Amino acid sequence: MEGMTSEASVTKLPECFSSVIPGWFSEISPMWPGEAHSLKVEKILFQGKSEYQNVIVFQSSTYGKVLVLDGVIQLTERDECAYQEMITHLPLCSIPNPKKVLVIGGGDGGVLREVSRHSSVERIDICEIDKMVVDVSKQFFPRVAVGFNDPRVTLHIGDGVAFLKAVPEGTYDAVIVDSSDPIGPAQELFEKPFFQSVAKALRPGGVVCTQAESIWLHMHIIEDIVANCRQIFKGAVNYAWTSVPTYPSGVIGFMLCTTEGPPVDFKHPINPIDLDDSHIKTKGPLKFYNSEMHSAAFSLPSFARKVIESKSD
Amino acid sequence: MEGMTSEASVTKLPECFSSVIPGWFSEISPMWPGEAHSLKVEKILFQGKSEYQNVIVFQSSTYGKVLVLDGVIQLTERDECAYQEMITHLPLCSIPNPKKVLVIGGGDGGVLREVSRHSSVERIDICEIDKMVVDVSKQFFPRVAVGFNDPRVTLHIGDGVAFLKAVPEGTYDAVIVDSSDPIGPAQELFEKPFFQSVAKALRPGGVVCTQAESIWLHMHIIEDIVANCRQIFKGAVNYAWTSVPTYPSGVIGFMLCTTEGPPVDFKHPINPIDLDDSHIKTKGPLKFYNSEMHSAAFSLPSFARKVIESKSD
Repeated sequence: MEGMTSEASVTKLPECFSSVIPGWFSEISPMWPGEAHSLKVEKILFQGKSEYQNVIVFQSSTYGKVLVLDGVIQLTERDECAYQEMITHLPLCSIPNPKKVLVIGGGDGGVLREVSRHSSVERIDICEIDKMVVDVSKQFFPRVAVGFNDPRVTLHIGDGVAFLKAVPEGTYDAVIVDSSDPIGPAQELFEKPFFQSVAKALRPGGVVCTQAESIWLHMHIIEDIVANCRQIFKGAVNYAWTSVPTYPSGVIGFMLCTTEGPPVDFKHPINPIDLDDSHIKTKGPLKFYNSEMHSAAFSLPSFARKVIESKSD
Repeated sequence: MEGMTSEASVTKLPECFSSVIPGWFSEISPMWPGEAHSLKVEKILFQGKSEYQNVIVFQSSTYGKVLVLDGVIQLTERDECAYQEMITHLPLCSIPNPKKVLVIGGGDGGVLREVSRHSSVERIDICEIDKMVVDVSKQFFPRVAVGFNDPRVTLHIGDGVAFLKAVPEGTYDAVIVDSSDPIGPAQELFEKPFFQSVAKALRPGGVVCTQAESIWLHMHIIEDIVANCRQIFKGAVNYAWTSVPTYPSGVIGFMLCTTEGPPVDFKHPINPIDLDDSHIKTKGPLKFYNSEMHSAAFSLPSFARKVIESKSD
């Protein structure tokens, strides 16, 4: 695996391991100044530098294995269910019979695992920029990377922005943007031209769900995303959020939008996955998502509602 | 103020300040092994040892002033709204015209501030065991301790368990138990005899709301609380939860129960505070709570629903 470093050859650990309690990983970033979440490290399993970012996998003492990109926790085995299930089923349970789905980012395979629970889906394209993320996930996170085993999945290694530009108009029923933060390789995925490409790639009444940061930390970013989406997507534009303990401030948000076409009411899912349990055999039961959690995710604290709903519907 | 230490005389800082990045406070506890949340410290404003616990106040760089008891963050100026508003309005907005309210713990005054937004309330008793918490809050957190200024409030310094035993049967419309974790002075507030005293102190169809830990970290504690409450409270027994970034795992839960009597449907508030805004002048607007957040708080992730609803209604 390109850039792979065996444990024995590790001589210098990145700063996130050295500036705090010895033996702990701390997540320090200008995206959340003045606070840091730390996990106790049992063993570092992998560290490498890809063309795009630093990649680390460690065994934590209480959160299972942890994937870190550029010093930021992407997933832990203990709480990944919340993020992967919500970012996937919020859009897919909101439309009848999704057939063609595109995932941008999501190289760990967790979103694929969730998409493939939907029996109506015929084709799943994924465009991940960093092959190392895919390889590392397959090696260290088999219960996440299981998503790649579905025969409906086609993996494209490359730039999501360029991939979308080449997509024929109206191809997808749903696009899921599972990106990292807007500092680093994912920056363009938060900008207006990208959202325009997404809208073009969707069929009329198609849905997009993008990772959209924390209402506690990033209202200014969210405000911009909502304003952009309101201009570009002529159907519903809604913000949802959920609890993920190992993400900064303990929550993560999602921007859900639809193109003009058959109306979509995100707050009232019409395609409940709860009823169909054929997927459980290979992927295990849903741990987090259910129809009640779906609707509840759109309820916003007053401070956030004031900002978001002034720009939204 | 008893036990008060002036800044100049501080020679030895407690361990939570010394075991991590210099200049940061880290919250390390056997209640959440293997993880720690840290806040950057600008200045330590107070440290003292009361009869019951260590009390610290510091100015953080991004969360405002922070109150710490026995090494555990109780509130920060930035996110206290979520906890105080939810623990108070979940019970009070679920019953018509609450008149007599008892607060156990809550010595910072934040719950009082929220209770006093309800114009129907005629009497607010608070029983806090540790006078130092009240004094420190009045000195350093005026926007929280403002709750003590309401003429309807009577402060009792003492043991909540003993106080409740002396309360005549059927006195209160609502009891709010704003306790710290079940290690330390609050331990008894999580045990069955305490819940029995609460039930006795409530009128028929009266409501109790108690701090009930995190579904991500403490399902075993929650399971016990639910089982106890199901035996003792013959009306509704429900679990709700909300986001509080500076609490471990980023969430906190609440146990909501009613005694036998006029039925209460916690999930559908019938006494909306949103409509009455006379309280805003002295206490500022609600930042977090609204009727949608109220109902959404009772939606549980599948992993938690499985455990809680098997013991609940």
